[in-house]
Amino acid sequence: MTNTLPRRIGRYALLLPGLMLVPSAAFAQDVSPEMFTVNNTWMLVATFLVFIMHLGFAALESGMTRAKNTVNILFKNTAIIAIGLLTYAIVGFNLMYPGDFSLGEFVGFAGFGLDPGAEGNTSAYNPGYTYYTDFIFQGMFAATAATIVSGAVAERIKLGSFLIFTTVYVAIIYPIAGSWKWGAGWLDQMGFYDFAGSTLVHSVGGWAALAGVIVLGPRLGKYVDGRIRPVAGHSMPLATIGVFLLWLGWYGFNGGSVLSADPALVSLVFVTTSLAAAAGVIGAMAASWGLQHKPDLSMVLNGSLAGLVGITAGADTVGVMSAIIIGFVAGLIVVGSVLGLDRARLDDPVGAISVHLVCGVWGTLAVGIFSTNAEHSFLTQLISVLAYGVFCFVAAFIILFALKALLGLRVDPEEERVGLDVGEHGMEAYGGFQITQA
Amino acid sequence: MTNTLPRRIGRYALLLPGLMLVPSAAFAQDVSPEMFTVNNTWMLVATFLVFIMHLGFAALESGMTRAKNTVNILFKNTAIIAIGLLTYAIVGFNLMYPGDFSLGEFVGFAGFGLDPGAEGNTSAYNPGYTYYTDFIFQGMFAATAATIVSGAVAERIKLGSFLIFTTVYVAIIYPIAGSWKWGAGWLDQMGFYDFAGSTLVHSVGGWAALAGVIVLGPRLGKYVDGRIRPVAGHSMPLATIGVFLLWLGWYGFNGGSVLSADPALVSLVFVTTSLAAAAGVIGAMAASWGLQHKPDLSMVLNGSLAGLVGITAGADTVGVMSAIIIGFVAGLIVVGSVLGLDRARLDDPVGAISVHLVCGVWGTLAVGIFSTNAEHSFLTQLISVLAYGVFCFVAAFIILFALKALLGLRVDPEEERVGLDVGEHGMEAYGGFQITQA
Amino acid sequence: MTNTLPRRIGRYALLLPGLMLVPSAAFAQDVSPEMFTVNNTWMLVATFLVFIMHLGFAALESGMTRAKNTVNILFKNTAIIAIGLLTYAIVGFNLMYPGDFSLGEFVGFAGFGLDPGAEGNTSAYNPGYTYYTDFIFQGMFAATAATIVSGAVAERIKLGSFLIFTTVYVAIIYPIAGSWKWGAGWLDQMGFYDFAGSTLVHSVGGWAALAGVIVLGPRLGKYVDGRIRPVAGHSMPLATIGVFLLWLGWYGFNGGSVLSADPALVSLVFVTTSLAAAAGVIGAMAASWGLQHKPDLSMVLNGSLAGLVGITAGADTVGVMSAIIIGFVAGLIVVGSVLGLDRARLDDPVGAISVHLVCGVWGTLAVGIFSTNAEHSFLTQLISVLAYGVFCFVAAFIILFALKALLGLRVDPEEERVGLDVGEHGMEAYGGFQITQA
Repeated sequence: MTNTLPRRIGRYALLLPGLMLVPSAAFAQDVSPEMFTVNNTWMLVATFLVFIMHLGFAALESGMTRAKNTVNILFKNTAIIAIGLLTYAIVGFNLMYPGDFSLGEFVGFAGFGLDPGAEGNTSAYNPGYTYYTDFIFQGMFAATAATIVSGAVAERIKLGSFLIFTTVYVAIIYPIAGSWKWGAGWLDQMGFYDFAGSTLVHSVGGWAALAGVIVLGPRLGKYVDGRIRPVAGHSMPLATIGVFLLWLGWYGFNGGSVLSADPALVSLVFVTTSLAAAAGVIGAMAASWGLQHKPDLSMVLNGSLAGLVGITAGADTVGVMSAIIIGFVAGLIVVGSVLGLDRARLDDPVGAISVHLVCGVWGTLAVGIFSTNAEHSFLTQLISVLAYGVFCFVAAFIILFALKALLGLRVDPEEERVGLDVGEHGMEAYGGFQITQA
Repeated sequence: MTNTLPRRIGRYALLLPGLMLVPSAAFAQDVSPEMFTVNNTWMLVATFLVFIMHLGFAALESGMTRAKNTVNILFKNTAIIAIGLLTYAIVGFNLMYPGDFSLGEFVGFAGFGLDPGAEGNTSAYNPGYTYYTDFIFQGMFAATAATIVSGAVAERIKLGSFLIFTTVYVAIIYPIAGSWKWGAGWLDQMGFYDFAGSTLVHSVGGWAALAGVIVLGPRLGKYVDGRIRPVAGHSMPLATIGVFLLWLGWYGFNGGSVLSADPALVSLVFVTTSLAAAAGVIGAMAASWGLQHKPDLSMVLNGSLAGLVGITAGADTVGVMSAIIIGFVAGLIVVGSVLGLDRARLDDPVGAISVHLVCGVWGTLAVGIFSTNAEHSFLTQLISVLAYGVFCFVAAFIILFALKALLGLRVDPEEERVGLDVGEHGMEAYGGFQITQA
Repeated sequence: MTNTLPRRIGRYALLLPGLMLVPSAAFAQDVSPEMFTVNNTWMLVATFLVFIMHLGFAALESGMTRAKNTVNILFKNTAIIAIGLLTYAIVGFNLMYPGDFSLGEFVGFAGFGLDPGAEGNTSAYNPGYTYYTDFIFQGMFAATAATIVSGAVAERIKLGSFLIFTTVYVAIIYPIAGSWKWGAGWLDQMGFYDFAGSTLVHSVGGWAALAGVIVLGPRLGKYVDGRIRPVAGHSMPLATIGVFLLWLGWYGFNGGSVLSADPALVSLVFVTTSLAAAAGVIGAMAASWGLQHKPDLSMVLNGSLAGLVGITAGADTVGVMSAIIIGFVAGLIVVGSVLGLDRARLDDPVGAISVHLVCGVWGTLAVGIFSTNAEHSFLTQLISVLAYGVFCFVAAFIILFALKALLGLRVDPEEERVGLDVGEHGMEAYGGFQITQA
C-alpha cells in the first residue's frame, strides 16, 4: 500500500492542499499529544457505539418477524459483522479510500490488507485518529449496509446465497460507492455532501434491499386474493430493544463522523441527531394515529429510525429547528412508505426499504434544503442520489440474479412454511415454548 | 434568550462571583482546548449513558408486568423520550436554568427554544462543556422523571391521558422544581445539596407516581376479599436486562453530574455508585431471604436500583464506607416499602414508588448524615425533601385529577381484562406465542 | 495500607525502577493534567464496558439453558457482581496488588479496605488513572471469573453453596492468582505475558468451571443409555444479546488493559480484538458446517467468544494477521472442545469450559507463537498455564468438595426436574407463557 493520504479524505482533507476543509479552527494539523489522544479516544468510543448497532439490527429484525425464522436472522447478523470486518480489512478499506483513483475517479485500490505505512499509527496519519482507529471505525460502518438488506429479505432467502451476496456487496460494491464521496472521488469533487451516510450507508443498503425484495418476491401468504395479510412480529420487546440500541449506536455513527472530538461539532451533532429521532417518533405517531386510527408501536419505532436516517446526511450542517423538521417529515414519510410498499406488493418484513432507502433519500435531499452551508446544492444532492441508486440497485440486482441462477435464492415453500430455523439450522429459537404462529 | 450564565449554575457556578464552588483545583475557568475537549467528550459519553436508561426503564417495566400490556408500556417509553427531549428544547431547559428568576427565586424563564447566545457553543459558555452538550445532557435527565411514573401507573392508565400528563409534567413541573436547586433558586441558596438528583429527578418522578397510583386505584383483581394477589411479571430476563442497563446508565447519570471529566471526582463517583448498587443487592437479598424466606429476584433487582437512587444525592461527597451503608440500607428499605405499600393497598406494579421516591428521600437525607462536607445539614435536606414533596405531589395530583375529569384516566374494565395492547394499540407483543395469564 | 506502588505493577511499572515497561514514548511519568484526564476518562469508559459483560453473561447463560432455571441464573449473576465488587473492595484488590509479597512472591496483602494513601487519588498514584479508577476497573474484572463458573454449573447447583463458592473464589483465589502476574509476583518476574487475562481471568474461571462440572456431575437426562441427549436453550435471542454485549464489553476489557488512552496501542487492540472475534465466528461456522452439517447458531456465538478469549492474552503484542489466525483457530477449537467434552460426559450447559478454559489456554500459548516481542517465550507461557491450572483447579475442587460435605452442592432430583426457579426462588421467569420443556 503506497498511499500517504489520510482516510475519509473527502470529508476533511486536513493534509491535502486545495481541499482544506478544517472542521474547526481549534484543530490545526499539528495537534498536541493530548488533543490527539482525546480525538482518538472519542473515535474509538464512536466505534464501539457503531458496533452496538449490529446487535440493534439483530434484535429489531428478529423481533419484527416470526419465531420460526429467528435463529436464521440471528445467525445472519452474527455472520455479517464477521464477514464485514474481515473483508473490509482485506479489500474494502483500500477500495473505499484508495488515495489515487485508477479508473477515472470511480474506482481505485490501494492494495490488499492493512498497513499503517510510512506515517505509522500516529498523528502524522491524521490528527483526529490513528490508522487503526480509522480502519476499525470505517469497518464497523461497512457491515451495517449488508445488515439493512438482511431485514428486507428475511423469512425466505437461502442462507448460503445471502452470505455470498453479503460478502460481495460489502467487500466491493459498498466501498466503491463510498469512495465516490468519502474517498474523494467524483461526487465529492462535484460538491456532494453526505455527513455520515444517509446515502453512502443507508441508501446503499436500501437499494440492495429493494432489489432483494423484487427478485425474491413476497413471503407465502402475505398477499392472498388481492388482500394484504399482516404478519405480526413475534416479539415487540426484542424489536424495541433493537431500536433503542440503534438510536444509541447512532451517537457514534453521527458523532464519530465529525472525525474528531471537536466539542462544538460533536455536541451539535448529538443535539440534531437526538431531536430528529424524537421528532421522527412524533411524526410517525401522528401519521399512524391519523391513518391507522390506532397508535402503532412498530410505526413509532420505525419513526425514530426514520428521523435518525433522515438527519444523518446533514447532522453537522443544519440548525436545531431544521433537524426537528427533517425528523418529523421522515416520521410521516416512513408510515406512508410502509403502507405504500405493501400496496405495491413489495414485501419488506421490517420496513427496511422505507427507513433506510426512502428516508435516506429524504435526508440527502434535505441537506440541499436546510443546510446552513451555501455551497450545498439541492441539484447536486439529487444527482448523487440518482447516481447511487443506479449503481447500487443494478449491482445488487445482478449479483442476486446470478445467485438465483447458480445456487437458487429462495428456500422451497415447505421450508418457508416450517421456518428457516429448522430448515436451515436444525434448531428452534425458543426451545420449550409453545408457538402457534403460521 | 438573554442569560449569560452557564447551566446548572446551582451546582458549580464557575463564572458567578460569590458562588465559587470550583469542583477541583485543576479546573480553573480558563481551560486549555485539550481540557475543554476531554471534559466535553466525557459529558457526551455520560449523555448517551443516560439515554440508555430509557431502554432500561422500558425493559424493566414491561418485564415486571403482564404480556398483555407490553406493547402499551413499550409505546409509552418510546413516546416519553421523544416528548421529553422536544419539550425540554422548547421550554424545559430555559425554565430549569433561567439565569434570573422572575417570581422570587421560584420560577424564571429564559425564553423559548435553544440559542447558544453571545458566548456561543464554546468554553466561554462553560469550561466543562458546550451549550449544546449542556442541553442534551440535561434533556436526557428530564425525560427520566416521566418514565418513573410510567411504571407505577402501568396496566390501567389511558394512553392519551398519560401522554398529556407526561408532556405537562416534563415540560413545566420538573424544570421548575429543578430550578430551585440546579438553577440556583431558593433551595440552592439555603444550602440544599443534591448531587445528581435523588430528589430532583427520582423523588420528583416518585411523587407523581404516588399521586398516579392514588388517583387511579389498584389493578383489577390485585386486592380481592382483603387479600393481596400477586401479579407475576411476564419476563424476568427482560426485567433483568432493564436493571443492568439502568445500572450502566447510572455511570453517566452520576458520573456526568460531576459536570467535567475531573479524574478524582469522576472516579470517586464511579466507586461510590458501584458499591452502593452492590450493597443494595445484598441488603435486598438479606431482607427478602429473611422476610419472604425465598430469595426473590425482583426484590434483588430493585435492591440494586434502590442503592443507586440512594447514592445519587451524595455520590461525590460521601466516603466509600458510607456509600456501602447507604446502599445496604436502601436495599433493606426497598423490600420493606414494597411490602408495606401493598399492605396499604397502593398498587405499584414495578415498585417505582419504593425505589425512586422512598429511596430518593433516604438518599437525600443520607447526605445530611454521611456527607464529608460540613456545610451539608440534615435539616436543610429534610426541608427540601418536604418542599419537593408538597409541590410535586400537589401538582401531579391536580394535573391527573383534571385529566380524569376531562378525558378519563383509566381504561374500562373490559379493556383492562383483555389488556391494553389490544385495547389501545390493536396488536399483541408476542404474536404466535401461547399466553394464558389473566 | 502502606504500599506506595501503583496497581497492575506487573504490567506497566511506570514508577518502579528496573521494571520500566513504558507502553509508549508519549507517556512519561509526568503527564500533563490534560493527558491524565483523558487517560483516566478512557479507563472509566473501559470500566463501564466491562460492567456490561455481566449483563452479557446473564443473558447468554439464561438463553442457553431451560426456561425453568432462568430466574436462578439471573439471580446468581446479579448476586455475583454485587459480591464481586464488595469483596474486591474489602480484600481482593489488596491481595491482587499487594505491593510487597510476604510469602515469597506467591501471596501478599496490603490490608483491608480502600485507601488512596499518601499519593491520593491523583496522577502521582499512576499517570494513567486515579486510585479509585484502578480499583473499580480491576473490580469489574474480578467478578467475571465467578460468572464463568455460573454457566458451567447451571441448572443443578444449590444457590446458597454457589454464592459461598463465588465469595471465596473471587475474594481470595482469583486475586492471589492474579498477583502472580499483574501484582508483580513470581510469574511476572519469570517473563510470563498475559495482556488482559486469557489466563488470569478466563482460565482462572474456566478451571473452576471444570472442577464444578466434575464434582457436580451432569444434569439429569443429559446422558442416558450411553447417548448424549441435547438440551436446547430456551431463548436464542437472549443468548445472542448476551454474546454481542460480551463482545462490546471486550473493547473495555482489552482496550482498558492498555491502562491508558495511548492512541497507538488502544487502536491496535481494538483492531486485533475485533478481527479475532470475527475470525472466531468464521472458524466456528466452518467447523460446525463441516462437522455438524448444519450451521449451528450456538457454535457461531461461542466462536466469537472463543476468538475474543483467544486474543486477550496478546491483543497488544501480535500483528493483525496473527490476530485473525488466533481467532480462527479458536473458533475451530471451541467446536471441537464442545463436542469432545460431551463425549467425555462433562456436562457444561453453555460451553464455558470450551470458551474460557480451552481457548484461554490457546490464547496464552499463542503469545509464545505469534508475539512480536522476542522476550515472550512459549515455554514460559506453558509453565504459567500449568501453574494456574494446578492452583486454580485444586483450590476450586477443595472449596467445592468442602461445600458438598457441609451443605450439599446439588439440588435434589425432584427440584432439578421442576426447575430451580420454583425450587429455589418460588417464582417463574415467564409468568403466563405456556412452556412444555422437560
